[in-house]
Amino acid sequence: MAYYTPGYQRAIEELSKLPGVGPKSAEKLADYILHLKPDYFDQFMDVLESMRKNVHPCKKCFHLTEGSLCTICADPSRDSHTICVVEKEKDVLAIEKTGSYKGLYHVLEGSINPLHGMGPEKVRIKELFDRIQQEPIQEIILALNFSQTGDLTCMYIIHQLKQVPLKITRLASGIPTGTDIEFADSKTLQAAFKGREKYEMEEL
Amino acid sequence: MAYYTPGYQRAIEELSKLPGVGPKSAEKLADYILHLKPDYFDQFMDVLESMRKNVHPCKKCFHLTEGSLCTICADPSRDSHTICVVEKEKDVLAIEKTGSYKGLYHVLEGSINPLHGMGPEKVRIKELFDRIQQEPIQEIILALNFSQTGDLTCMYIIHQLKQVPLKITRLASGIPTGTDIEFADSKTLQAAFKGREKYEMEEL
Repeated sequence: MAYYTPGYQRAIEELSKLPGVGPKSAEKLADYILHLKPDYFDQFMDVLESMRKNVHPCKKCFHLTEGSLCTICADPSRDSHTICVVEKEKDVLAIEKTGSYKGLYHVLEGSINPLHGMGPEKVRIKELFDRIQQEPIQEIILALNFSQTGDLTCMYIIHQLKQVPLKITRLASGIPTGTDIEFADSKTLQAAFKGREKYEMEEL
Repeated sequence: MAYYTPGYQRAIEELSKLPGVGPKSAEKLADYILHLKPDYFDQFMDVLESMRKNVHPCKKCFHLTEGSLCTICADPSRDSHTICVVEKEKDVLAIEKTGSYKGLYHVLEGSINPLHGMGPEKVRIKELFDRIQQEPIQEIILALNFSQTGDLTCMYIIHQLKQVPLKITRLASGIPTGTDIEFADSKTLQAAFKGREKYEMEEL
């Protein structure tokens, strides 16, 4: 027995694909969207369309921007000798919120995960190495998640950079292992920045 | 300090207006929508657009439909002598899921609420009275919420219909007072249907 009209049912199915939205919440969202005033609905759709149209990766660090360079890369007051490498744009936002990091970023757009076919070529590691050659980088801070794939990605990067005269550090523990960086609170993130540990290249 | 691009920020603001979506969930949704594959994004938008375009109230009972009459009004096997009056389409869906009611519906699209300027003329009560005159109705089941405005709406309807030879009932208690009908489970709803109480007109 069909309780919903086909178009309503399709909307519920589509909305229940959103992260954190179960079948019951999807019904609520569909009902809300169906009854939005036309102006509000148009605004809702326009805002999503224009986010999709205008927001894209920075050509240098792959953080989100609506121009060519992101506001961080374009800011001359940032310390251009340090690159903080993260997996996702959300990690940049989490770190920026601490207000304690003044260098640049590099967003890998993922991490190496052989089980899911994510080799080093599927993330922005080559672009990171290009930047290290072209920019006056002195330190690479690896702010990758403390997960198997995060660890693997760190190992890959430091092995590839073994011969390059660079300080390479990783955020200190302080962030509980198994937790994603985007969910850490600012205090914990600040502590992790402060206590970041240098990889000793001779140990590799 | 702006952590988001303006377009991204607007999308987060728009998404956080959705029911049950807080600022943190809105960030998650914006991130998800931004990274959807183009085909999936187009499908997402199309499905919402077409729900808005095609789904509208049934011209008879005001339940949702994509045609002229809803599937319930158009079904000749339904008992056309009984109308179940509800506040919202969601209440129809909740009652249909019990599978135990075989009559028709009438969706008021709200309830009388003088504090919010909702007089009887703002809900579909006139249309209900028109149906009572035009259709072979023998019983009106009031399945309105057990709230102040639900009670008030019931009182208004039964007072207006005092002179009309009709059986008027209201769902039995069984649904905990203060709870909306849409959230009741099927068993409770079935019990409430079975034990519905007849208004004794002489007491009014």
